[in-house]
Amino acid sequence: MYLFNSDYLEGAHPLILKALMDTNLIQTPGYGTDDICRAAAEKILAACEKPDSFVHFLVGGTQTNMTVISAFLKPWEGVISADTGHINVHETGAVESTGHKVLALPGSNGKISAGQIEACASAHMADGDREHTVKPAMVYLSQSTELGTLYSLAELTEIHGVCRKYALKLFVDGARLAYALACGENDVTLKDLAHLTDAFYIGGTKCGALFGEALVISSPELSEHFRYMIKQKGGMLAKGRLLGVQFGTLFTDRLYEKVGAHGIRLADRLRAALSENGYRLFAESPTNQLFPIFSARQLEALQKEFSFTLWQKFDDGAAVRICTSWATDEKAVDRLIDMLRELKEQ
Amino acid sequence: MYLFNSDYLEGAHPLILKALMDTNLIQTPGYGTDDICRAAAEKILAACEKPDSFVHFLVGGTQTNMTVISAFLKPWEGVISADTGHINVHETGAVESTGHKVLALPGSNGKISAGQIEACASAHMADGDREHTVKPAMVYLSQSTELGTLYSLAELTEIHGVCRKYALKLFVDGARLAYALACGENDVTLKDLAHLTDAFYIGGTKCGALFGEALVISSPELSEHFRYMIKQKGGMLAKGRLLGVQFGTLFTDRLYEKVGAHGIRLADRLRAALSENGYRLFAESPTNQLFPIFSARQLEALQKEFSFTLWQKFDDGAAVRICTSWATDEKAVDRLIDMLRELKEQ
Amino acid sequence: MYLFNSDYLEGAHPLILKALMDTNLIQTPGYGTDDICRAAAEKILAACEKPDSFVHFLVGGTQTNMTVISAFLKPWEGVISADTGHINVHETGAVESTGHKVLALPGSNGKISAGQIEACASAHMADGDREHTVKPAMVYLSQSTELGTLYSLAELTEIHGVCRKYALKLFVDGARLAYALACGENDVTLKDLAHLTDAFYIGGTKCGALFGEALVISSPELSEHFRYMIKQKGGMLAKGRLLGVQFGTLFTDRLYEKVGAHGIRLADRLRAALSENGYRLFAESPTNQLFPIFSARQLEALQKEFSFTLWQKFDDGAAVRICTSWATDEKAVDRLIDMLRELKEQ
Amino acid sequence: MYLFNSDYLEGAHPLILKALMDTNLIQTPGYGTDDICRAAAEKILAACEKPDSFVHFLVGGTQTNMTVISAFLKPWEGVISADTGHINVHETGAVESTGHKVLALPGSNGKISAGQIEACASAHMADGDREHTVKPAMVYLSQSTELGTLYSLAELTEIHGVCRKYALKLFVDGARLAYALACGENDVTLKDLAHLTDAFYIGGTKCGALFGEALVISSPELSEHFRYMIKQKGGMLAKGRLLGVQFGTLFTDRLYEKVGAHGIRLADRLRAALSENGYRLFAESPTNQLFPIFSARQLEALQKEFSFTLWQKFDDGAAVRICTSWATDEKAVDRLIDMLRELKEQ
Repeated sequence: MYLFNSDYLEGAHPLILKALMDTNLIQTPGYGTDDICRAAAEKILAACEKPDSFVHFLVGGTQTNMTVISAFLKPWEGVISADTGHINVHETGAVESTGHKVLALPGSNGKISAGQIEACASAHMADGDREHTVKPAMVYLSQSTELGTLYSLAELTEIHGVCRKYALKLFVDGARLAYALACGENDVTLKDLAHLTDAFYIGGTKCGALFGEALVISSPELSEHFRYMIKQKGGMLAKGRLLGVQFGTLFTDRLYEKVGAHGIRLADRLRAALSENGYRLFAESPTNQLFPIFSARQLEALQKEFSFTLWQKFDDGAAVRICTSWATDEKAVDRLIDMLRELKEQ
Repeated sequence: MYLFNSDYLEGAHPLILKALMDTNLIQTPGYGTDDICRAAAEKILAACEKPDSFVHFLVGGTQTNMTVISAFLKPWEGVISADTGHINVHETGAVESTGHKVLALPGSNGKISAGQIEACASAHMADGDREHTVKPAMVYLSQSTELGTLYSLAELTEIHGVCRKYALKLFVDGARLAYALACGENDVTLKDLAHLTDAFYIGGTKCGALFGEALVISSPELSEHFRYMIKQKGGMLAKGRLLGVQFGTLFTDRLYEKVGAHGIRLADRLRAALSENGYRLFAESPTNQLFPIFSARQLEALQKEFSFTLWQKFDDGAAVRICTSWATDEKAVDRLIDMLRELKEQ
Repeated sequence: MYLFNSDYLEGAHPLILKALMDTNLIQTPGYGTDDICRAAAEKILAACEKPDSFVHFLVGGTQTNMTVISAFLKPWEGVISADTGHINVHETGAVESTGHKVLALPGSNGKISAGQIEACASAHMADGDREHTVKPAMVYLSQSTELGTLYSLAELTEIHGVCRKYALKLFVDGARLAYALACGENDVTLKDLAHLTDAFYIGGTKCGALFGEALVISSPELSEHFRYMIKQKGGMLAKGRLLGVQFGTLFTDRLYEKVGAHGIRLADRLRAALSENGYRLFAESPTNQLFPIFSARQLEALQKEFSFTLWQKFDDGAAVRICTSWATDEKAVDRLIDMLRELKEQ
Repeated sequence: MYLFNSDYLEGAHPLILKALMDTNLIQTPGYGTDDICRAAAEKILAACEKPDSFVHFLVGGTQTNMTVISAFLKPWEGVISADTGHINVHETGAVESTGHKVLALPGSNGKISAGQIEACASAHMADGDREHTVKPAMVYLSQSTELGTLYSLAELTEIHGVCRKYALKLFVDGARLAYALACGENDVTLKDLAHLTDAFYIGGTKCGALFGEALVISSPELSEHFRYMIKQKGGMLAKGRLLGVQFGTLFTDRLYEKVGAHGIRLADRLRAALSENGYRLFAESPTNQLFPIFSARQLEALQKEFSFTLWQKFDDGAAVRICTSWATDEKAVDRLIDMLRELKEQ
C-alpha cells in the first residue's frame, strides 16, 4: 500500500538527518539563541534578498499562524481569510482561542481578491457604529493555497496595495511554499514575499524537514517582542538549534528548491496522466496537490494499492486529494499512472 | 569551554537518532495516529502499570503545561502552584494567556505541602463571597522541582488526599522525571505517579530525546477531547510519529532509566566534591541540578573552562546552577572536580 | 424631530422609575443576593411555569451572550448562529474574545433551521479528523431575530430535538422578547422557552427597563458556578437590587406584556400603512422592527421630521429600520402614517 | 438592623434619581453618543483641568479594570499591583481571563512603593532570558486603597517618575475616589490624577450613583479605539445616557465633593470614638473604611443592632470593616458611637 494522502507521511530529507547526526553532540545554548540558528537565519535572509528582515523559527504551522496573528492584532481586531483558509477551517479555532475573529470571505479556488479585501475594509470604515463590529486589521493568505492554487505576483501586489491603503497587515502562510516556488506557473519569488508582506513563513514540515517553519518578519516593530509570544504560545523549542540545523541545510546548495522540484515534477506527471486519460478534476491546481474525481469502480481498484485523502463523496465515487512531496517514490507514480490508464472510462 | 548550564544543550541520545534514521522513510498517517505512537504509548502504560490510562505526546513542557491546565479547568478556576513553579515564573504567562490565574503559594525548597493546599482550598470554600475570587481547582507540582528537590511518596500521597477531598485535579510536571526516578533518595515510581495524579508527564526534551513530553491522563473524561486541545494550542505535530519513535526508544531496554542514571551518577560525584571541599550550597538538591555558591575568585577561574547558569549574584561571587544530563561528558566532570579541589578556600 | 431608530431611545417605563424611587434608601446586601432580587426571580419562574429553573440578572445583552456562551462551552467548542445573529456581527467579537468560534450558518430572514443545525453537527461527527475542527456544541437563536422575525413553536421544538440528539446546548437571546411575546403571529410562550432551552433571557433594556436582562437557566449543573462567570466577565452589579427592582416591576400586574403590546400595536399600525400605500419591504417582520424601502424623494421628506436607522443604501433611496417600543408616542405614529400616505408613489 | 457593611447598600443620591426622572422620556441615540454624555464629559474634564483628555463611561469597577488593562497591554505584558489590590484578589481572575498576569507585590497597608515598582521593572530588563517571563508594562493603584489608605502626592509623583522611566502605564482605580478627595489627609487632586496617570477613574457606584464609573484617559493613542473594547467586554450600555445623566449631576454644584464629605465626616466621628474608647484597629485608614477589632462580647452586642463585614476572625473576636457613604444615616452613627462607649473594655 503506497500513501499519497499528504506531504507529511515520511521523516526528513536524508541531508537533514545527516546534519542532525553531525551536530548532535555539539553543545549550544537553548531556545534558538545559538550560532547555528543565526547562520540559518542569515542564509534565509540572503535568499530573500532582504537582510534587514527578522527570522524566527517555530515548530508547526497552526502554531505559527496563531502566534503571528495574536501577536500582531489588537484585541478588537480580526483577520481576513478565504473561507477555505487553514485558519478558518482546520485549526480547531486556534485563532479564536487567542481572542480574535476570523473574517471569512468566500474564496474562489481557495483565493480571495484585492477587491474583496477592499470592500470588507472600506465597509467597516464607513460604518457609523463601527465599534460594534470587529475591525479588519490583517489579511491571511496561503501560498500555495489549501486547494493547491497560487497567487500571481500581480494579484499579490494588488493585495499589498489594498493592505497599505487600509493599514492591514499582510501575512502569508507558506506551509507548502517549496512546491509553490518550484511550480512552472509561479511568478512570486521569496524576494517578492519578503518585500510585499509584513510576515510570511517558509514551510519546513511539508518541505523536507522533520518539522519547523521559518517565519520572516519585515519590520523591527513587529519583531521586537515576538520571542515573548513564541514562548507564551508554547512554540519555543528548548533545543532550538534543531530548527537552525534543518533550515540551514535546506538553504544550503539550494536544497529547498530541489525538494520542491521533486514534488512538482511528479505532480506534473500525474496531472498530465489524469488529463490524457480524461479524468475530471474537483479543483484545478498547478502545484503538488491534485483533486481528481474517481468513480466507485476506479476508486475500488486504486485503493487496493494506494491510499488517498477523501475530499468529497458523490453518489458514484468521490473526489480525492493526491499529494506528492520531496519523498514521493517515482516508482509509485509510475504504477499509479499505469493504473489511471487502465481504469479510464471508455 | 564546557557548558554545564542546563540539560538541553545537546541533541538526542544516539539510540534515538538511530531510531529516527531507521524509520525515516516509512510512511505513516499524520498527527500521532500511527502504529509507532500506539506502540510507544503501550510501552509507557506498561511501565506505569496502569493500562487503562491514556497517553498523549506533545512537543515541549510549557506547551504541555498550558494545554493540560486550560483543558482541565473551567473559566473561573485557577491552579495552585509553588511560587517558584515553572508555570508561575518562567513561561511568559502562558497559563494566564489561556485565561486562568496561577494561585502561587510560598514554596519551601521549591515544594508546597498538603497543609498549604488544604488551607487555600478550604479558605475559598469558607468565603461567603467566594464567587468574587478564583476557585482553586487544580494543583501543579514538579517532580523534580525547579530547585532539583523531590516530593516523597508520603508527601505526594498526602497531597493526593487533599486533592480528592476538595475536588482538586492533581497534575505533575515531569520535565526532569528521569533524574527524579534515578535519584537514590527518590521513592516515587512511575506507577505511583500514574495512580496518584490526574495527569503527569514524562519529560523527553531534557531526558535524552530531541524534544517531546509524554502526557499520561488517568481518566477517560479528561482524555476524551484532549486531542482537540493539543491541536488548538499548536502542539499537534504533523509528523507525530517522531514522538512515538523517540518515546518508543526511551521505553525499550530501560533506556529512560539509563539516561537518568548517567545524569545522577555524575551529579552525585559533583555533589560529593562540593561537599568534601567545603563549598556552600544555595539550595540542597539530590537530583541533577546543583546550586553551589562560588566566590568571585573561584568563579573567575572556573569560567575560563566552564559555563554555568547564573542563579543569584552576591557582593562577592554568586550562586550558579550546574546541570548534568544523559549527555554529560565524564571527563568534563573529572576536570571540574579537580578545579573545585584546587580552588577551595583554605 | 422624532426618533424611530431603535427601542432604547428613552429611559424606563414610569412604573419602573417609581419602584426605583420607592426602594432607593432601603439597605440591601450587594451583588444581587438580596430579597428584592429573590422575589423578582420567583415571579419570573412563576411566569415561566418552571419553578426549578434558575434566574440570574445581568446588565446588558452582549454581556449576557458572551457570559453564557463562555460559561457553557469547553475551550474547543463553538456556537452555531445565523450569519445575521447579533453575536456574529454586532458584538465586536465578544464571543471570540472569550476564545470561541461562532459557526455562522446562512440565515433565512434571520433564522436558521433544524436541518441546517443537524447538517453542521453531523458533518463534524462524521469527520475522521474532527479534532482539527471546532466542535459544534451550542445553538444561539434570537427571539425575535435581528430582522424582527419569529421562530414558531414547531420550529423551536424541532431545533430542540436536534440539540438533544447531538448534545448541543440551546440558548435563546430574548433582548426583544416582550415584542415577540406580544406579536399576534407568535405561538411560543415563556413556558415553552423555559422548557425547550438550556438558557434564554428576558430582555429588559429594550422592553421597558433602564437596563438589564433576566437569564433563565434550566439545569443546576449549568447554573451552579454561573455567578463566578458573571463576576469575572464584569456583569455583576454592586447594587444588584436595581435589577431585582426592575424585573420585579415588569413581572407585576403583567407589565412586561403591556410593554410588548404597546410596541406591537403601533408597529402593526405602521405595517398596515406601509402595505396600504404600496411601500416595499426589505424584510418581512411581524414584530416591532420594520424595514421599509424609501425612495430618495420620500426619504428626504420624511427625514425632516423623523429619524430612522439606515439599513442598506440603494441607488435611489434606501432601506431603513423603524422601531417601535413601550415608549413610542402614538402621535408620532399618526403623523408618520399621514406622511406615508402623502408620499406614496402614484 | 442598620448595615455598615459597605458603601453600595442603597440606591442613588436623590438628586441623581431626580435627574433620571427629569430626562426619562427625552429621546437620545444609544451607546453614550448623546449630548448628555458629552456635556457630562466636559464637566469632568473641567474639574480635572485637563480638557485634552478623554472620558469614557462604564458600568462597574471590575469591568473598568479589566477593560482598561486588556486594552492597554500587549499579550505578553502584565500589570503590577499590590497583593491586596482589587484586581488581584476580588475580581474572580477577570484580568487573567483577558490573558494577562497580575504581578503582585507585597503591599504595605494596601500600598506599593516606587522603589518596589522600580525593582520589579529593572529586574525584568536585566534578565538575560527575559522573554521567558511576563513583561511588566503597567501599574495598578487604588485611591483610596482596599484598606482605605491613600497615596500622597509625593508618592504618586515618584511612582509616575518610575513609570515614565520604564515605560509602564499608570492606572488608578478610583472606585472610592470621592472619599479619598474629601479626606482631610489627602493632597492628591483630580487635576493631579489627570496629569500623573495614563488613565484613572472616578467612581460612581460607591459615591452616590446607581452605578457607573467615569474613566479619564490621557492620550489620544490610548483612547482612540477604546470604545471597541468597551463594547467587546460587555460594558457598553445601550442607554448610555444614563451614565451621562448621573455623572453630569455629580459634577454639577460640586455634588461629588458633597457626597465624599458626608461619608468622611461620619467616618471621622466613628474613628474618633474608636480611638477615644481604646479600640484597636486592624489597619489604619483615614477614609471611609474603618477596621476595628472587637472582642466576642462586643461583637455579640453590636450585632444586635448593626451589621459589619467580617474581615478576619480571631480566637476572641474579629476585625470587621465599617463603611460610611453619602447615604449613611447620622442617627445610626450616633447610636453606634454610644454603644462603642458602653462596650469599651475597662
